[in-house]
Amino acid sequence: MYPKPLQNLIDLFAKFPGVGPRQATRLVFFLLKQQNGFASELQYGLAGLSQIRQCKLCFRTIDQNGSDETLCILCKDPKRDHNTVAVVEKESDMQSIENTHIFHGLYHVLDGVVSPLDPESPKRLHLRELHSRITKLLEHSHKAEIILATGSTTEGDTTALYIDRILTPLKTRFPDLTITRLGRGLSLGSELEYADEITLKSALTNRK
Amino acid sequence: MYPKPLQNLIDLFAKFPGVGPRQATRLVFFLLKQQNGFASELQYGLAGLSQIRQCKLCFRTIDQNGSDETLCILCKDPKRDHNTVAVVEKESDMQSIENTHIFHGLYHVLDGVVSPLDPESPKRLHLRELHSRITKLLEHSHKAEIILATGSTTEGDTTALYIDRILTPLKTRFPDLTITRLGRGLSLGSELEYADEITLKSALTNRK
Amino acid sequence: MYPKPLQNLIDLFAKFPGVGPRQATRLVFFLLKQQNGFASELQYGLAGLSQIRQCKLCFRTIDQNGSDETLCILCKDPKRDHNTVAVVEKESDMQSIENTHIFHGLYHVLDGVVSPLDPESPKRLHLRELHSRITKLLEHSHKAEIILATGSTTEGDTTALYIDRILTPLKTRFPDLTITRLGRGLSLGSELEYADEITLKSALTNRK
Amino acid sequence: MYPKPLQNLIDLFAKFPGVGPRQATRLVFFLLKQQNGFASELQYGLAGLSQIRQCKLCFRTIDQNGSDETLCILCKDPKRDHNTVAVVEKESDMQSIENTHIFHGLYHVLDGVVSPLDPESPKRLHLRELHSRITKLLEHSHKAEIILATGSTTEGDTTALYIDRILTPLKTRFPDLTITRLGRGLSLGSELEYADEITLKSALTNRK
Repeated sequence: MYPKPLQNLIDLFAKFPGVGPRQATRLVFFLLKQQNGFASELQYGLAGLSQIRQCKLCFRTIDQNGSDETLCILCKDPKRDHNTVAVVEKESDMQSIENTHIFHGLYHVLDGVVSPLDPESPKRLHLRELHSRITKLLEHSHKAEIILATGSTTEGDTTALYIDRILTPLKTRFPDLTITRLGRGLSLGSELEYADEITLKSALTNRK
Repeated sequence: MYPKPLQNLIDLFAKFPGVGPRQATRLVFFLLKQQNGFASELQYGLAGLSQIRQCKLCFRTIDQNGSDETLCILCKDPKRDHNTVAVVEKESDMQSIENTHIFHGLYHVLDGVVSPLDPESPKRLHLRELHSRITKLLEHSHKAEIILATGSTTEGDTTALYIDRILTPLKTRFPDLTITRLGRGLSLGSELEYADEITLKSALTNRK
Repeated sequence: MYPKPLQNLIDLFAKFPGVGPRQATRLVFFLLKQQNGFASELQYGLAGLSQIRQCKLCFRTIDQNGSDETLCILCKDPKRDHNTVAVVEKESDMQSIENTHIFHGLYHVLDGVVSPLDPESPKRLHLRELHSRITKLLEHSHKAEIILATGSTTEGDTTALYIDRILTPLKTRFPDLTITRLGRGLSLGSELEYADEITLKSALTNRK
Repeated sequence: MYPKPLQNLIDLFAKFPGVGPRQATRLVFFLLKQQNGFASELQYGLAGLSQIRQCKLCFRTIDQNGSDETLCILCKDPKRDHNTVAVVEKESDMQSIENTHIFHGLYHVLDGVVSPLDPESPKRLHLRELHSRITKLLEHSHKAEIILATGSTTEGDTTALYIDRILTPLKTRFPDLTITRLGRGLSLGSELEYADEITLKSALTNRK
């Protein structure tokens, strides 16, 4: 019922995850009201995506911008601890860890999770690259800690288990490889009464 | 922390109403994963907005598309009842009413509401245009029903009251002008126990 | 794990509708902390329930309190309009209507709803009593309005339909019997965008 | 508007924490519908509260029931580890810990929390009793672990800090006293993206 260019744009916005037709309509009418200035900025911003590449080592996004750079600033930074690698589901998780300011190692962005229901899901992650990266790292420094910094969801746990199985065989050649997981326990603001049993068990075991 | 073109696009998406920085980040990473196909479609779709105009009579959007059309298909349709005009806050409300298939009049899109807290708000609405449109209509047909189809929110009520005050003086010249409001009462799925007093009063008064 | 008298009381509280074992535990520990004063008051209050009866005419609760009263104060009140009867699902709905201060008729409390899924449900309501009450009323005054003041839920609608079928045959003998329902429309605070189609249709039809 | 005994009982139920007048009304009408059987059971159950006492050592509830027992079954159980004491805010937290089946020590129920806004709040807790209990325990066995098993809320943290300050001086006489807190980290089902910074820091620090 809306003019074709409008309906077309509403349909495109509705393709975003978590954006229904109603929100899509609202977003497009907001755009219309902002005059063409905002729409132009968005067009220009979208064009900018074409210069985004991924770091060859950790698969974070980097800005190519004409140069032939292939590594991100963290992977190139000699002050970071290159023997500690936090494996994360997605780039924004890396950001959350950086915000704590207490981690000084490198990252490895998987770009997804291993889904227990989808046997093809591991193929879409940067797992082969992780294995060869860690192998090379160990051949060079003989010592590394890999933190499986996935979520404590079913999928995060499955992903961590999967990676653990892939990397554990390296321990026979490199006994100084340690594979760790994020600590479990009470998160901020929890009352014991509402904590699930598994969390409470971890909180008791990890008391200190 | 994200590459500049990414962060720039995230900031733009975060300007949309109801989209926070976290959702904006998710939307932009979704775009990145879709390859450039989707981003290009969006760019193209945004360009299409420039050919959107507003109907000179009812202020709905129309697709200019090279032609010099100034009226929407409803305002041009001789089968619609041109003496009944539903005044709505925004174009999507018009859509909601069309979906009921029981209204055959025309519309007038205000493009906003009169906010009790913002004395400038009436100036941003198509109120002057409404007054002259209704005056012309009455001079021509001497009979009209204006349905103030605004929401039953504080702002919707204020808007209806405001328009009522603007249009009521026309009744002295045109006694066959009627100004109505949408019926109040129990909406679908309401239990009396949870109905507010005003709604219940309306439901009792409007029983039938 | 709690002492028997405590666990026993928790189990009893958990029988209340909408009270889970966790809330039941909290309620009982609250009681414990209040010393025996509050528990005694509650015991005494519960004993008071035994003197509660139902009005013979409208099935509201009344306080027997030694007397042989069988009618409630509303049913005995000559200033109320005895020819208008609002049929409600439960006594608290009656209370909601009284709170509007615009209804001056009598009530009939059904004590439940007709459930489309439970063919036995009509038998548990005061329907037979309603039919004979209305018949007597009409034989006496020849004129009555029955307001089916049930909710606009599936069950409320089914109940109203059921009663309508029971009472409508009386219209052949008593043409001045009118059966009405509460008005439908936008309830307070509704935006058109979120209103369902049926509500919007009613709001348009009942405009005024 | 309800008969006095009903309204009286509704008012009493509305005194329970988290029970508003609407829920109180529903609970009382539910009681009415259950006939007097349920109300009598409740009365009887409430009477049973008078035989509830508190364990002299850990302040859990116990069933006096005519006997002159002063300790609960856990405090009397020689198979529990009497040198480990988990200090909890309330008895239901103790229950949550028991449900994990991995804790074999004893408990100390505080019966409340230290509120940062209420300087009188510590006086209402079993803190003095905790101090003398732990002192006696240490004089006897010279070794103890006190787990401050309070929630990770502001009040839980304040309470733990308060107790830590009370008990820490004992370490000079008894160097084998350890005071621990429940482990912090990701609780079950958390995504990194939504974890707060403090929780994420703990999760990183407590990785293993």
